[in-house]
Amino acid sequence: MSGRQSIEEAVIARAVQLAGLPSVRAPIGAGDDMALVSVGPAKVLVAVDQVVEGVHFRTGTPLDLVARKAVARSVSDIAAMGALPAACVAAATLPNDMSAADAQRLVGAVAHWAHSFDCPLVGGDTSVHTGIGAPLTLSVTVLASVRADGIIARRSGACAGDTLLLGGAVGGSFGADGLGRHLHIEPRISQAQRLIDALGAKVHAMIDISDGLGRDAARVAHASGARTGRALQARLRGDRIPLRDGATLRQGLCDGEDHELLAAIDADAAIPEGWTAIGSMATPSLGDARGCVVDAAGSDQDASDLGWTHG
Amino acid sequence: MSGRQSIEEAVIARAVQLAGLPSVRAPIGAGDDMALVSVGPAKVLVAVDQVVEGVHFRTGTPLDLVARKAVARSVSDIAAMGALPAACVAAATLPNDMSAADAQRLVGAVAHWAHSFDCPLVGGDTSVHTGIGAPLTLSVTVLASVRADGIIARRSGACAGDTLLLGGAVGGSFGADGLGRHLHIEPRISQAQRLIDALGAKVHAMIDISDGLGRDAARVAHASGARTGRALQARLRGDRIPLRDGATLRQGLCDGEDHELLAAIDADAAIPEGWTAIGSMATPSLGDARGCVVDAAGSDQDASDLGWTHG
Repeated sequence: MSGRQSIEEAVIARAVQLAGLPSVRAPIGAGDDMALVSVGPAKVLVAVDQVVEGVHFRTGTPLDLVARKAVARSVSDIAAMGALPAACVAAATLPNDMSAADAQRLVGAVAHWAHSFDCPLVGGDTSVHTGIGAPLTLSVTVLASVRADGIIARRSGACAGDTLLLGGAVGGSFGADGLGRHLHIEPRISQAQRLIDALGAKVHAMIDISDGLGRDAARVAHASGARTGRALQARLRGDRIPLRDGATLRQGLCDGEDHELLAAIDADAAIPEGWTAIGSMATPSLGDARGCVVDAAGSDQDASDLGWTHG
Repeated sequence: MSGRQSIEEAVIARAVQLAGLPSVRAPIGAGDDMALVSVGPAKVLVAVDQVVEGVHFRTGTPLDLVARKAVARSVSDIAAMGALPAACVAAATLPNDMSAADAQRLVGAVAHWAHSFDCPLVGGDTSVHTGIGAPLTLSVTVLASVRADGIIARRSGACAGDTLLLGGAVGGSFGADGLGRHLHIEPRISQAQRLIDALGAKVHAMIDISDGLGRDAARVAHASGARTGRALQARLRGDRIPLRDGATLRQGLCDGEDHELLAAIDADAAIPEGWTAIGSMATPSLGDARGCVVDAAGSDQDASDLGWTHG
């Protein structure tokens, strides 16, 4: 797990270095939930996510749930940007022994879920592995449009003093049988839209929780700190974080793939219905590089890394 | 190979059925080289293609060439639509034993080639296989804009009597060492643009040759016939087809991944420099369902299926 994470992080770091610098063609590049791209005279948001057998779902998971997860993860990125779904394309690499009927079932399920999330499937590509036992992979690229008022919720817009809002309960997304809630992600498109409808530009930053609340809150803090050049730290109140039934606080902070929304809003904004204030964005003490701390058991603990789960 | 093809075709058939019907959101759906999508008030072209180790490149192929092929295949789809590259995103699933340095090299190569084809990398997703020996897969989604004059070159616009033009030489794309020209695809963006600049709406249809000239010419014939409800057949002159050094006519008709452009233009249009007239689009005899025939060795032969290579 830690080896995997380090390769992925190395790649992301390199990709952000290569593709993340804002440019004429891409005013928002890699490093946010979606990139903003100029396509001719238009501005379009785009993101790709994938699910891989053995990594994001267990072998034997029903194809309908595999398709749902693949589509929902990408559509959740649209929600996090405060954007509106337009369409998606999918690329699948199929196990060598998958039947044509199952392959059609998978594509049918991708089309079904894309339609149900208002992000219709408009194209794709399919290959079949030559080797026996090679895993199913399914990548989904989503296109989205910016709101008519031009507001885009980035990771990097948070300010010191902002209230941190959570859009749902977290923790326990995997479940003991591997068939947990991570296979039933609900992209929060309309919840994000209502938040921006209500608060407008007072919504400073947003992210969907894909790698754990602590880790993703730290990402918002780091991205926002990098923007202004002044370090930020997400300070969470352990007793305020809504947890799923049976989940511990630690699970709520560390479980990946909750896909609920975390938003940083102006300190003087009212908390809209359906959102819970779970902390605030603060300026850390000098030398404190932690992106996210939580007060639990009477002291501040670092929640900004998956390492916290193993402590 | 034939099993692989049949699953892929089954999936494509289902995808076209599900996603291929034109809609308000996608005036051009699956079944063309790219889909045309409404993103808010804008129209955007989008396509995804992937390369899979063991299918599209041999194990041990230099990562730079893997990245080049993945990007170039997708950018070639932009050329085929007569469109202009905007940006791309990539999703990679990496072998479990790939080093972080190699992973970064791969991402760097994707960014390099995307930039060199004027289609900058703006985002991506990376996963690492859990199992040993699982193959590298790399999918690239490209976004493109429609020309200012609104002309889009679809597969389905050919008419009986149209002249068929080939933009380059074909055949021998794989090479005995597996490191052939298929790894050095040159997307023909500017060649396609010059053709449409010169002939405008007299360019009726275009496709890039990814599965063999015969097969792709048949696709244009079938798509165009389906549009008008009157069957069409591509009739190729075997002696006119420009072949790569050392390639046989059969290879020129059957080798996949040439990625040269095939265009159907109005019969009264002049042949622009750099293009070769290799045949015409005709109404077939009643009951003749062949999409592409070639006159070679004194008789018409069916060139519309890969089966021809095995005959």
